Amino acid sequence: MKQVRIGIVGATGYTGSELVRILSRHPYARVDVITSMSRAGEAFSDVHPAFRGVEDRTLAPLSDLSEYELDIVFLALPNGASMEFVRDHGINRFRIIDLSGDFRLRSPAVYEEWYGRQHVTAERLSDAAYGLPELYRSVIRSSRLVANPGCYPTSAILLLAPLLKHRLVRPTGIVIDSKSGVTGAGSVARSGTHFPWVFGNFRAYGLLRHRHTPEIEQVLSESAGQDVQVQLTPHLLPIDRGILTTAYTEAIEGVNASMLEEVYRTCYESERFIRILDSPPSVKNVRGSNFCDVFATLDSRTNRIVAISAIDNLVKGASGQAVQNMNIMFDLPEEAGLGQVPLSP
Amino acid sequence: MKQVRIGIVGATGYTGSELVRILSRHPYARVDVITSMSRAGEAFSDVHPAFRGVEDRTLAPLSDLSEYELDIVFLALPNGASMEFVRDHGINRFRIIDLSGDFRLRSPAVYEEWYGRQHVTAERLSDAAYGLPELYRSVIRSSRLVANPGCYPTSAILLLAPLLKHRLVRPTGIVIDSKSGVTGAGSVARSGTHFPWVFGNFRAYGLLRHRHTPEIEQVLSESAGQDVQVQLTPHLLPIDRGILTTAYTEAIEGVNASMLEEVYRTCYESERFIRILDSPPSVKNVRGSNFCDVFATLDSRTNRIVAISAIDNLVKGASGQAVQNMNIMFDLPEEAGLGQVPLSP
Amino acid sequence: MKQVRIGIVGATGYTGSELVRILSRHPYARVDVITSMSRAGEAFSDVHPAFRGVEDRTLAPLSDLSEYELDIVFLALPNGASMEFVRDHGINRFRIIDLSGDFRLRSPAVYEEWYGRQHVTAERLSDAAYGLPELYRSVIRSSRLVANPGCYPTSAILLLAPLLKHRLVRPTGIVIDSKSGVTGAGSVARSGTHFPWVFGNFRAYGLLRHRHTPEIEQVLSESAGQDVQVQLTPHLLPIDRGILTTAYTEAIEGVNASMLEEVYRTCYESERFIRILDSPPSVKNVRGSNFCDVFATLDSRTNRIVAISAIDNLVKGASGQAVQNMNIMFDLPEEAGLGQVPLSP
Amino acid sequence: MKQVRIGIVGATGYTGSELVRILSRHPYARVDVITSMSRAGEAFSDVHPAFRGVEDRTLAPLSDLSEYELDIVFLALPNGASMEFVRDHGINRFRIIDLSGDFRLRSPAVYEEWYGRQHVTAERLSDAAYGLPELYRSVIRSSRLVANPGCYPTSAILLLAPLLKHRLVRPTGIVIDSKSGVTGAGSVARSGTHFPWVFGNFRAYGLLRHRHTPEIEQVLSESAGQDVQVQLTPHLLPIDRGILTTAYTEAIEGVNASMLEEVYRTCYESERFIRILDSPPSVKNVRGSNFCDVFATLDSRTNRIVAISAIDNLVKGASGQAVQNMNIMFDLPEEAGLGQVPLSP
Repeated sequence: MKQVRIGIVGATGYTGSELVRILSRHPYARVDVITSMSRAGEAFSDVHPAFRGVEDRTLAPLSDLSEYELDIVFLALPNGASMEFVRDHGINRFRIIDLSGDFRLRSPAVYEEWYGRQHVTAERLSDAAYGLPELYRSVIRSSRLVANPGCYPTSAILLLAPLLKHRLVRPTGIVIDSKSGVTGAGSVARSGTHFPWVFGNFRAYGLLRHRHTPEIEQVLSESAGQDVQVQLTPHLLPIDRGILTTAYTEAIEGVNASMLEEVYRTCYESERFIRILDSPPSVKNVRGSNFCDVFATLDSRTNRIVAISAIDNLVKGASGQAVQNMNIMFDLPEEAGLGQVPLSP
Repeated sequence: MKQVRIGIVGATGYTGSELVRILSRHPYARVDVITSMSRAGEAFSDVHPAFRGVEDRTLAPLSDLSEYELDIVFLALPNGASMEFVRDHGINRFRIIDLSGDFRLRSPAVYEEWYGRQHVTAERLSDAAYGLPELYRSVIRSSRLVANPGCYPTSAILLLAPLLKHRLVRPTGIVIDSKSGVTGAGSVARSGTHFPWVFGNFRAYGLLRHRHTPEIEQVLSESAGQDVQVQLTPHLLPIDRGILTTAYTEAIEGVNASMLEEVYRTCYESERFIRILDSPPSVKNVRGSNFCDVFATLDSRTNRIVAISAIDNLVKGASGQAVQNMNIMFDLPEEAGLGQVPLSP
Repeated sequence: MKQVRIGIVGATGYTGSELVRILSRHPYARVDVITSMSRAGEAFSDVHPAFRGVEDRTLAPLSDLSEYELDIVFLALPNGASMEFVRDHGINRFRIIDLSGDFRLRSPAVYEEWYGRQHVTAERLSDAAYGLPELYRSVIRSSRLVANPGCYPTSAILLLAPLLKHRLVRPTGIVIDSKSGVTGAGSVARSGTHFPWVFGNFRAYGLLRHRHTPEIEQVLSESAGQDVQVQLTPHLLPIDRGILTTAYTEAIEGVNASMLEEVYRTCYESERFIRILDSPPSVKNVRGSNFCDVFATLDSRTNRIVAISAIDNLVKGASGQAVQNMNIMFDLPEEAGLGQVPLSP
Repeated sequence: MKQVRIGIVGATGYTGSELVRILSRHPYARVDVITSMSRAGEAFSDVHPAFRGVEDRTLAPLSDLSEYELDIVFLALPNGASMEFVRDHGINRFRIIDLSGDFRLRSPAVYEEWYGRQHVTAERLSDAAYGLPELYRSVIRSSRLVANPGCYPTSAILLLAPLLKHRLVRPTGIVIDSKSGVTGAGSVARSGTHFPWVFGNFRAYGLLRHRHTPEIEQVLSESAGQDVQVQLTPHLLPIDRGILTTAYTEAIEGVNASMLEEVYRTCYESERFIRILDSPPSVKNVRGSNFCDVFATLDSRTNRIVAISAIDNLVKGASGQAVQNMNIMFDLPEEAGLGQVPLSP
């Protein structure tokens, strides 16, 4: 049976551990090497003790990567480190799925504006496929460099693209009020994620200038065929996993409830990981799984469509989607390794 | 020293216990009687064990109320029960602060539409003062029947009234995305508030038709001097206390950041319980206190004002505000009994 | 490929949903029917919305069970209901794994004393195998009726049996201080599991008289070959899943640290689901998995052995262990369907 | 009215902020100066934003302390820093309540053994009063240097001292299984207190060698009039505040339930902050308050007494108890400033 030979670069963060969790049960995946800058020489299960007995191999230094013949490398690196890896290693020896934000924006100028640094391999930005399978499956299939979407963008785009593509809502004045679990802030302890401060708390952050804003606008504009502008406000939920996005749009004159239903059905009927609900979704119903639950309703009083989606930010919002992309790139069954049932309760 | 003689009707819910918590340390308050339908004859501290040694008196049946000479009665009753109490007891023997939704809407027709029942003392609706001190202090002072605001309305109105009153934003297309702790759902156990389901979870509820919608619109319309329409979406936070409201409005042409700051300062400079922040508020910073923290910022890219407020839903959102109203009605220092410092962490 | 034909009786509780979660990904399992008294006629995913798209079949009434030719039936029923099922259906048509407490105690008198009711099929108590594979694997293999252990007993027995079997500790004066997530209290909402009360809280319950006490004593006495007496105190953790058990025993004169290590290694070296740690375990490191993590240390100052175990109460503490038992009963690979990696973070 | 003039040394930690929370509402307290090494020059409310509008004064450098005429100084410093302060400043200019562990142990040798460093003012150890008012009130009253007890010791000693003093239990083989909220680990973010790791988790730490062990043994030995040995195991609860301690002791022959009740009544009947319960306590029922709830029961089956206490680790376990000590030292009403009703729910 065909086995994809895999390297994972970056092992100490949550996207790295979640990749290993998923790939360790994938029937067609063989993880040949896991590298780490800061923890090379230690066991993976020393860094992530939940994996004792599951994945105990020693983390390799990045320089070992060249010793392996790999089909694909997942980059579980911070923003900025991924583009340096791509600059240094190219995309000929192996295909790449990058989980950082480095290759998601097509314009170097927009990247520089929102990420506050110059792109070091700007010429690659046009090569990279945007790894949202439900919208870009065929491009992903043949791509050598896939930019895995951000967690907020995944939740927002899957929710809004059908409405914009089918011209049910106006492309401006869109409000995206998103709430994420704390794993979205990364695995490094900071005062803002100290337990006594987050417990029993709730707050917004990154107002006006969150980097996922231009990513959402870029993709939704492509779906809409016209410029889309959104107001994204992220909030920090006192839970570990999960994003709930509540989006507000103005309905085009004449839109009704059955058109709404029809549009989502048309777009997602054959999508295995999208569940169209008839009541508002809950993040716990997708915990640990690759599902994206969506729901939309028209308020005839205000003529607005309120739409809500739920994902696990580490799965459909990161590593699960990355594996889904890999499956597409290697002609595997798209759901391979991604059959985890949501852990609820 | 002057002592206000107080009756509390309804003791088993959270607004009742929170009233007792606050009033037990109020220098000018004397709670003479606490009644309960379902638990009469039991000790208050049997119903609320945290109060052992603090408030152990026996709960009286409602019929005992007539034995006391009272200055004021707080109604900590479900919607529907309060209007029956007012119908039966009138407002002559004592003044009343009602914590339910029964007297918040001025129009019997709107009440019937959103609450799904006829009002039994519709003629009282015009008498009732809307108990939001920062907007209606003078009316409250002389009123015999005060309708204590809802928790979501308190958080939304205090946030948005300055913008609308001073015409910085358009009165339509307002989005109010609110998130509340679970005490807002009441003290009765239900499947929707079962711990294993709420823990690690987050979801929206009451879309389009939440009863606080017309309450917010009524009061904001009065502030604006024109009809205001809002889209309110409540969400359930997996915490016990606290509401964070994120509101989105469209700025009027020419509005700038300093006007924004000016408007909040003008409205709230002398308000003891409103804190104007220069960064987004956190619900934990108001836990247990009567503060309402507000923050607003203008996004020049989208021309929207994003405004955020935080309250403790049981204090400024319910019982604390009720005591603030009592203080005004009896010419006491407005902060009497309300000096609790937020419990953070 | 061989498929075990399965019926699940009782679908609305957490052990039922967890069985379906595990069996839906089991390569040799075929769930033919799921019955429910209270929700027959509804879809499984209406009762457990996380399963939408995963398990949408209609719940059957119990009477339908006779229409299916089944190899095994899992009883996910309340205490008391299971023994009635066994009395009525016998154990000839299919083998049975019972997840209730009805068949765990070998003595009808002890059952009556601790469960407060007479046993209706007392003659079956001696037939039933105690379904703790690490201790009773060969008996389970040939049994037609397996009593799946309680969650606290699983965590306590796996932790203490090696010490008692190998006579490292005294059989009396054993303290078992256990802490469980709220799913252990079942899926029915009660005031004691109302979110605002459990959140930020912690308390003991069931002191002195918890039903798992005689179960633990019975099994540990068998391991020790002498009477064992324990003091069990359960506590309610404000989390959804997980049990941590801290046990205190008095070391026999002459016991040292290397003997301790040796004993656990001897007992569990080839056990796939037991991980012997060299530092105290954490419940999050087993979440969603069938692992039991154990750790023990000798305090030479007090001459006590402090031992700690962690399990997911719904998996190794209930449904995962039930599936492990099924695998043994049908000569399947013991880990089939049980390869879930812990969901951490 | 008499005002105690107060200095607080150390403002960035939780004991510091909690002191300010309590003292800001104390009728006889006047905080004249708050110092900080790391944040001098910043506003107290910049470090602790919950205090905006409550305590906005600028933090002073330690060197400013000499400019104030103070009656008492609270040391809210890390272990090690307090003894240096006492060495440098002496105890003549002002009385001192130290919230660290530096002056709790009477023996320099024991201090060195458990704290891993030499004591720099060992001669002061015999001067210091152990600041547990219920046991040492008269000594505290006249002391110039009070060592405020540790949080675990407060919960354990108040629970067990009556049993040992009145010889109801044996002085050896005592098990103290304690569970604390995360504020007990301090205000500095570390990987062990990173929200995604603590959330949904539970674990033991500090086994065998926790520094509170000798503190508990020292005080309980004094109560018992003989050597007491305990086995303390601390655990980390995924909540912010609260300690629950479950203690196991062996009853002396002939002890019965009414003797148990009698002993607690004798010891604590007139203690304002100790509540003797007839059912197991819950940490939420003491949240934010200075109460210590205690409960004990005799298991006639095992002849053990299981005793449980609950405190708020930052109040009765730290800053509230410190203020109680101050009240005693200055002949103020012992409950002054400490009337906070538990914040439940």
